[in-house]
Amino acid sequence: MPEPRIRLGMVGGGEGAFIGAVHRIAARLDDRYELVAGALSASPDKAMRSAEAIGLPPGRSYPDYRSMARAEAARPDGIEAVAIVTPNHMHASVAEAFLEAGLHVICDKPLTATLAEARRLRDKARASGLIFAVTYNYSGYPLVRHARAMVQAGEFGAIRVVQVEYAQDWLAGPLEASGQKQAEWRTDPARSGAGGCIGDIGTHAYQLAHFVTGMAPEQILAELTSFVPGRRLDDNAQILLRYGNGARGALWASQVAPGSDNGLRLRVFGEKGGLDWSQEEPNQLVWSPLGEAPRLIKRGTTAVNAAGQRVSRIPSGHPEGYLEAFATIYAEVAEAILARRKGAPLDPMVTFPTIEDGFAGVAMVEAALRSHAVGGLWVTAEP
Amino acid sequence: MPEPRIRLGMVGGGEGAFIGAVHRIAARLDDRYELVAGALSASPDKAMRSAEAIGLPPGRSYPDYRSMARAEAARPDGIEAVAIVTPNHMHASVAEAFLEAGLHVICDKPLTATLAEARRLRDKARASGLIFAVTYNYSGYPLVRHARAMVQAGEFGAIRVVQVEYAQDWLAGPLEASGQKQAEWRTDPARSGAGGCIGDIGTHAYQLAHFVTGMAPEQILAELTSFVPGRRLDDNAQILLRYGNGARGALWASQVAPGSDNGLRLRVFGEKGGLDWSQEEPNQLVWSPLGEAPRLIKRGTTAVNAAGQRVSRIPSGHPEGYLEAFATIYAEVAEAILARRKGAPLDPMVTFPTIEDGFAGVAMVEAALRSHAVGGLWVTAEP
Amino acid sequence: MPEPRIRLGMVGGGEGAFIGAVHRIAARLDDRYELVAGALSASPDKAMRSAEAIGLPPGRSYPDYRSMARAEAARPDGIEAVAIVTPNHMHASVAEAFLEAGLHVICDKPLTATLAEARRLRDKARASGLIFAVTYNYSGYPLVRHARAMVQAGEFGAIRVVQVEYAQDWLAGPLEASGQKQAEWRTDPARSGAGGCIGDIGTHAYQLAHFVTGMAPEQILAELTSFVPGRRLDDNAQILLRYGNGARGALWASQVAPGSDNGLRLRVFGEKGGLDWSQEEPNQLVWSPLGEAPRLIKRGTTAVNAAGQRVSRIPSGHPEGYLEAFATIYAEVAEAILARRKGAPLDPMVTFPTIEDGFAGVAMVEAALRSHAVGGLWVTAEP
Amino acid sequence: MPEPRIRLGMVGGGEGAFIGAVHRIAARLDDRYELVAGALSASPDKAMRSAEAIGLPPGRSYPDYRSMARAEAARPDGIEAVAIVTPNHMHASVAEAFLEAGLHVICDKPLTATLAEARRLRDKARASGLIFAVTYNYSGYPLVRHARAMVQAGEFGAIRVVQVEYAQDWLAGPLEASGQKQAEWRTDPARSGAGGCIGDIGTHAYQLAHFVTGMAPEQILAELTSFVPGRRLDDNAQILLRYGNGARGALWASQVAPGSDNGLRLRVFGEKGGLDWSQEEPNQLVWSPLGEAPRLIKRGTTAVNAAGQRVSRIPSGHPEGYLEAFATIYAEVAEAILARRKGAPLDPMVTFPTIEDGFAGVAMVEAALRSHAVGGLWVTAEP
Repeated sequence: MPEPRIRLGMVGGGEGAFIGAVHRIAARLDDRYELVAGALSASPDKAMRSAEAIGLPPGRSYPDYRSMARAEAARPDGIEAVAIVTPNHMHASVAEAFLEAGLHVICDKPLTATLAEARRLRDKARASGLIFAVTYNYSGYPLVRHARAMVQAGEFGAIRVVQVEYAQDWLAGPLEASGQKQAEWRTDPARSGAGGCIGDIGTHAYQLAHFVTGMAPEQILAELTSFVPGRRLDDNAQILLRYGNGARGALWASQVAPGSDNGLRLRVFGEKGGLDWSQEEPNQLVWSPLGEAPRLIKRGTTAVNAAGQRVSRIPSGHPEGYLEAFATIYAEVAEAILARRKGAPLDPMVTFPTIEDGFAGVAMVEAALRSHAVGGLWVTAEP
Repeated sequence: MPEPRIRLGMVGGGEGAFIGAVHRIAARLDDRYELVAGALSASPDKAMRSAEAIGLPPGRSYPDYRSMARAEAARPDGIEAVAIVTPNHMHASVAEAFLEAGLHVICDKPLTATLAEARRLRDKARASGLIFAVTYNYSGYPLVRHARAMVQAGEFGAIRVVQVEYAQDWLAGPLEASGQKQAEWRTDPARSGAGGCIGDIGTHAYQLAHFVTGMAPEQILAELTSFVPGRRLDDNAQILLRYGNGARGALWASQVAPGSDNGLRLRVFGEKGGLDWSQEEPNQLVWSPLGEAPRLIKRGTTAVNAAGQRVSRIPSGHPEGYLEAFATIYAEVAEAILARRKGAPLDPMVTFPTIEDGFAGVAMVEAALRSHAVGGLWVTAEP
Repeated sequence: MPEPRIRLGMVGGGEGAFIGAVHRIAARLDDRYELVAGALSASPDKAMRSAEAIGLPPGRSYPDYRSMARAEAARPDGIEAVAIVTPNHMHASVAEAFLEAGLHVICDKPLTATLAEARRLRDKARASGLIFAVTYNYSGYPLVRHARAMVQAGEFGAIRVVQVEYAQDWLAGPLEASGQKQAEWRTDPARSGAGGCIGDIGTHAYQLAHFVTGMAPEQILAELTSFVPGRRLDDNAQILLRYGNGARGALWASQVAPGSDNGLRLRVFGEKGGLDWSQEEPNQLVWSPLGEAPRLIKRGTTAVNAAGQRVSRIPSGHPEGYLEAFATIYAEVAEAILARRKGAPLDPMVTFPTIEDGFAGVAMVEAALRSHAVGGLWVTAEP
Repeated sequence: MPEPRIRLGMVGGGEGAFIGAVHRIAARLDDRYELVAGALSASPDKAMRSAEAIGLPPGRSYPDYRSMARAEAARPDGIEAVAIVTPNHMHASVAEAFLEAGLHVICDKPLTATLAEARRLRDKARASGLIFAVTYNYSGYPLVRHARAMVQAGEFGAIRVVQVEYAQDWLAGPLEASGQKQAEWRTDPARSGAGGCIGDIGTHAYQLAHFVTGMAPEQILAELTSFVPGRRLDDNAQILLRYGNGARGALWASQVAPGSDNGLRLRVFGEKGGLDWSQEEPNQLVWSPLGEAPRLIKRGTTAVNAAGQRVSRIPSGHPEGYLEAFATIYAEVAEAILARRKGAPLDPMVTFPTIEDGFAGVAMVEAALRSHAVGGLWVTAEP
C-alpha cells in the first residue's frame, strides 16, 4: 500500500493570489499531499468563495486561521501540516498558531516582516520540535542540488568569490499606484516589512548563495535605492558580503531592471573551478574546472551527481521548471513528515530550507537596512 | 461549486514505464482529473502491484483493458475517459475497446503501428462522435501556440521554408541489447511498427510543423538509416517535404546524434518574417520580422498573444517545462469533456491534437517507408 | 631580416565591391603581402579611380587583366600572386591568364560559372605546378581547424551524420530589382552561373563539411527553389548527401530565411561524439563526447589542439572574426609561396583550399542542378 | 590621390609582448598608418632584434625612446604619432618625451601608475594641444557606439542602474611565480602601480560604463582582495558607484574567476529600457524597451544607428572582433590626425578615448585604493 497522502491546510492564497496557486500545484504535482482545509483569505466571504473554487471539502473552509488551527487540530482526520501563503506581516502569527496546535508548517518567505518576530518564531519552532519549512523554492532545482554537492565535495576548493543577482523589471514603473494587488502589498511597509526588493527577492538570492556554498557572511554592506517616485520601499539593492574565510560576495537585487523577468543567477568561483547557473535556464549549469574546457552539465544526464539526480523527474532535454523545483520542496518536506509519521529515520539526502534559513533571510534584510541607515557602512551580518 | 474532476482511467503505464508517469502528472497538475481506474500492465500481477503503488481505489485495478472498459462503462461512477500509454502496437485495439464502451480517449503517439490500423481507428473514432486526443504534447507549449496564432494571423505572409529537427543521442549505442526497456520496445518492429526513430520522434517533429504552419505536405522523400549494427529500425531520418503552395520543408530526426538530448526545434520562414523555437528552451521564441531586429518573445510577457497567454500558468521568467506543456494537452481535453458534460459550446480557442493528427503521423511514417523502399524517391504524402 | 612581403596583384574589387575590400584587409592583416598592382574593374576609368583610392603605386593600375598579367610577369619586381575577386563568370579566363604568366593564384569562390570551365582550369592549374588557392574562407577559423584535426585523429569514430546549413535573408525580397549591385550579379545566370544560392553560399557549406570531415558524397539529391517572383536563380536549396561509408548528410542553404544574417553552421555526429560550430559565434565549439557532459571549446584556450592554436592570433575571450579567418587563408598561402621562394619544404600543418576544392564546389552545384532538373532524384556527385 | 598614410612610431612592444602586436595589427588593418620607427624594448639588443623581425626601416630602430623622440622630430619624414605600449610605469615619461617633441600620442591604459603622474601628464597634454588617445579599445566596438548613441538620444530615459563586470581567470594561480612575463609585470607594483586587477581591467570596465552612459560617479566604495597567496596586488575588486543623479552602479573585476576568459559585460538600466552587451559576443546587443519584447540588435543590420554603422566594416553575420574594435580606435585617431594635417574640421561623429579618460581611470583606481585603505568606506571619486 502506498503511504496515504499528507493532509494539508492552507492559510492565504485566495482569489487573485499568485503564490497560493503555485503552492497548490507544487503540493499536488508529486501526489504526496491532499489539500483538505483552508483559511484562504482574511475576508471571510472571499475565503469561502475561494475554497469553493478550488474544491475544498465542505466544512473545512475557515473564516480565520485561528479557528482553523483549533478545529483541524481537534479532528481525527485533521491536517498534518499547513502552508502559509499570506503577505509577510502575517506569517509569524499564523505560524505560531499552527505550531501551538502541534502542526508542521510550510511557510513562504521572507519569514517575517521584522527581525524580532523572526527570532521569536524561530525560538518557538525550535522548541516545538515540529517541521518548519520555508519555501526558498529555488533550492529545489536539480542543478542547484548538484552545485551544492560539488561544493561540499570540495570540487571547487576554497571558495573565493560569490556573485549572485536577482533582477526583475515589473516594478520599473509605479505599478502599485494602479491597484495591482501584488505590487500593492509588496511595496507596503506595513505588509512587507521594511525591506522591499531586498526582502522579496534579495532574500532568495542570499539563500541560494548560502544553500550552494554553505557560507554565511560575517559582514554586510548595503546600498538600497528606491528609484520609482513615491515608492516607500527599496526597489534596487547592491550588497557586498565578507565571509569569514576571506571570500567575498556581491549581491544585486533589482525590480527596476528592464528586460529582466526573473533573472536569478548564481556564480561561484573557487580555487579549482567556477560554476554558473541561471534560474531562467535551469536545466543546465556551466562548470569550469580551472584550466580545462567548461562543461555543460545538463539536468537528467549522467554528468549530474546523486544529489541532482534524486530530485529530477524526467529525462534530460525535457525541461523541468519553476513548478517542479517548487514541488521538490514539498516532496522533501513530505519525506520528512512521513518519516515522522512512521518513526523512521530520515534519508540524509533530504534537504529543504527551514526556519533557520528563514531567520537568516530576515537577519540579512535587517543588517542591510542597518548598513543603509548609516550611509552604507559595513555591519555585522547577524546581531 | 467547481465542476467535479473528470474520472480518468489508464491503460499501460505500470512499473518502469516512463510515459505513464508523465501522463499522470499531466492529468494531476491542473487538478481537472481524478485517476480512478487502470489496467496498468499486460501482466496481471504487475498491473495490480502498479495500481497499489500509485494508489488506485481498490477494485478498480483491472487485469486487462477489455474487462476494464466493460466494467467501467457499467458503473455509475465509471471513468469518463481513458489514457492509453501502452507500446504503439496496442494502441488501436485498446482505443477501440474504449470507444465501443462510449468513452473518450486520450492516446499516446504514434497512433498505431500500421496505417491500416490507423485508418480503421480513425474511422471508428469519427463515427463515435467521442473525443479522441493524441498526446502530441509539444503542441501544448505556450510559445508554440503563440507561433501558430501568428501564422494564422498572416504575420509571416506566405510560408516558404520549414526546417524542423528532432535530435537525440540515447540510441547512439546498442542500448536495446542491454535490456533497457524503453530501448527494447522502441527498436522492436513488432511493438513499435515499421518506423523507428521516424515513428518515435519524427512524428512529433512532423506534427509540430503542421500544428504551427497549418500546412501538410503533398510529397515526401525520405532517407532512413540504421546506423547501429544489429538495429532493426531506422535511427536517423532525413526527410524532404513539398507543400502544395510551393513551400519546402526539411525534417531531420535522429537518435544517434551525440550531444542531443531532446532537441526538437522548429524554424519557419515566410515572406514577412521568420520564427525559431526550441523545445529545450521553450520559454522563448525568436521572431524576426523581415528587415527589423529580431524580437525575443518570452512566455508570460505582454508580447505573447492571446493564444499563448491562455495556456501559461505562471509569470515570465518562471520557466514552465515539458510537464506543464503536457498538462496543457490534458487541460484542453478537459475543457472539451466538460463542455460535453454540460452541453455547452466549446471555447473556440481550445485546441489539442486529435485522431486526425494521429492518423497524419502514421501516414507520414508510411509514406517515408514507401519512399525509402524505392531508394529515396518522391512519393505522395497520403495514400 | 624578415622575409620581404609577397607582391600581390588584384583583379576585380573596385569601387562598391564588398569582397575586394575584404581580400585586401585579409592580405594586410598579418603583414605578409604588399598590394602593388591591380586591374580593379572591367571599366578602365573605374579601374584607375579605384586604384588611386586604395593607393596602388602609379603605373601599376591596369585597364584590363591581360595587360596586367603580361606587364607584371615582365617586371623584375612584378607581382608573385594575383587575387581574383571578379564575378564568378570571369574567374576562369582571368585565372588562366595569370597561370600562363607563371603567377600563383588566389581566387574567390565559386571557382567558375560552369563545370566545363572548372575542369579546364583545374587541369591547367595542375599542369602549371603553381599554387592555386580558392578562398573558402570559413576553413580559416581556428575552431574549424580544431574540429578537422579531431576528426582526423578519430575522436568521433566513424562519422554517421553531417548537418550543415547556411542561411541568410538578404534576398528575401526582390533586391536585384532595386539596382543593388551585389544582388544583381548574384542572381544573374550570366555572371553567377546556373546556381544561385547554391553556388554563392551552398558551396561554402559543402566545402566546410568536406574540410572538417574529409568525406565527399557519392550521391546527391537536390531540391532547389526560387521563391522570390521574377528571380532567375535558386534562392533556397535543400540537399541530401550519401557518403560512401554509409554516412548521411543534409545541406540547407537559403537566402530567403528572415532572421538569418550569415548563419553557417556545421554539426557532425560520429560513433563517439558530436560537434557543433556556428560561424556567427566562431570562437566556441561544442564538443559532445558520447555519454559525457558537452565541452565548450573556446578559441585560444589550452583545450584547443595544435591545428587550432596555430592559426589563433590573440588570447581567448578576445574574439577573432571573419576578417581574421579570411586573413588566415592568406597567411597560409603566404607560407606556401615563401616555401617556394626559398625552396624550403612546406610545414605540413599549412592547409588552405585549392583548385581541387574549387572544382568540387562547382561539381556539387552541377550535380545539384542535374538532380533538380530530373525532379529531385539521386545523382552521382561527380561526373 | 588618397591621403598618405600616417607615419607612426612605437615604444615598447618588442619580442614576447602581446599588446604591441595588437597595436600593430590595429594600425595596419584599415591601412591608415605606416609603422616607420620604434624603440621596441628597453634592452637595446632586443629592441634591434624586434625591429628587424617586424621589418622597421633600417636606421629607425632606436635604443631608447628619448633618442627616438629627438631624432624623429628632426626628420622631415619623421613620425607624426607614437604608440606607447610599455608597462604602465613607463607611460608617463615616454608620453612626455613625445609631447615635448610635438608628436601626437596613442597610449595604452591605464594611463600611468600613479595619480600624480596622471595629473602631470594630463596637464601637459592639455597644454600641448596635441592629440592624446588612450586605447580603451572596447569603446571601438560598433554596438558600444550604438549603445552610447541610444543613451545620448534619451532612449533609456534617466539611467538608474549600471552593472558592469570584467572577469578573467588567467591569474587564478600564482602564474607570476612561473616566470610568465605578462603575469610578472601585471602583478608587480613597481611596474603596474598600486592597482592590480583594478588597474589592468577594472579601468576598462569603468571607462566602458562611462563611455556608454556619459556618467561619472561622485562616490566610490571598493573591496579589493588578493586571493592568490603571495600576490602583491589585488586580483579581485568589487566596487560600488554613486552617481550624482541618484543612479547606482556596481563594478566587478576579477582575474581569479575560473571559466572567465575576457568577460567584459555592461548592463545599463534606465526608466524606459535596458541594454545588455558582452564583449565576448560583441556583434549583438540586447535592447529591452520597458514593457516590450527585447530586441536583438545585430551589428551591420539596419537596426543599428548611425554611430554604430559608421565603425562597421563588413555585413551582419560576418563577425567583427577584438582586433577590429581596436583598429577602430586607430582609425578614429587617424581621422583626427588627418584633420589636423589638412586644417579641416573634424567629423563630429569621430570619438576616441583621450587623456581625460586615461586620467579618470587612474583617478578611479586611486579612489578605490583610498576606500580600501580605510576598510571599505565611501570616498569621493576624484580628488
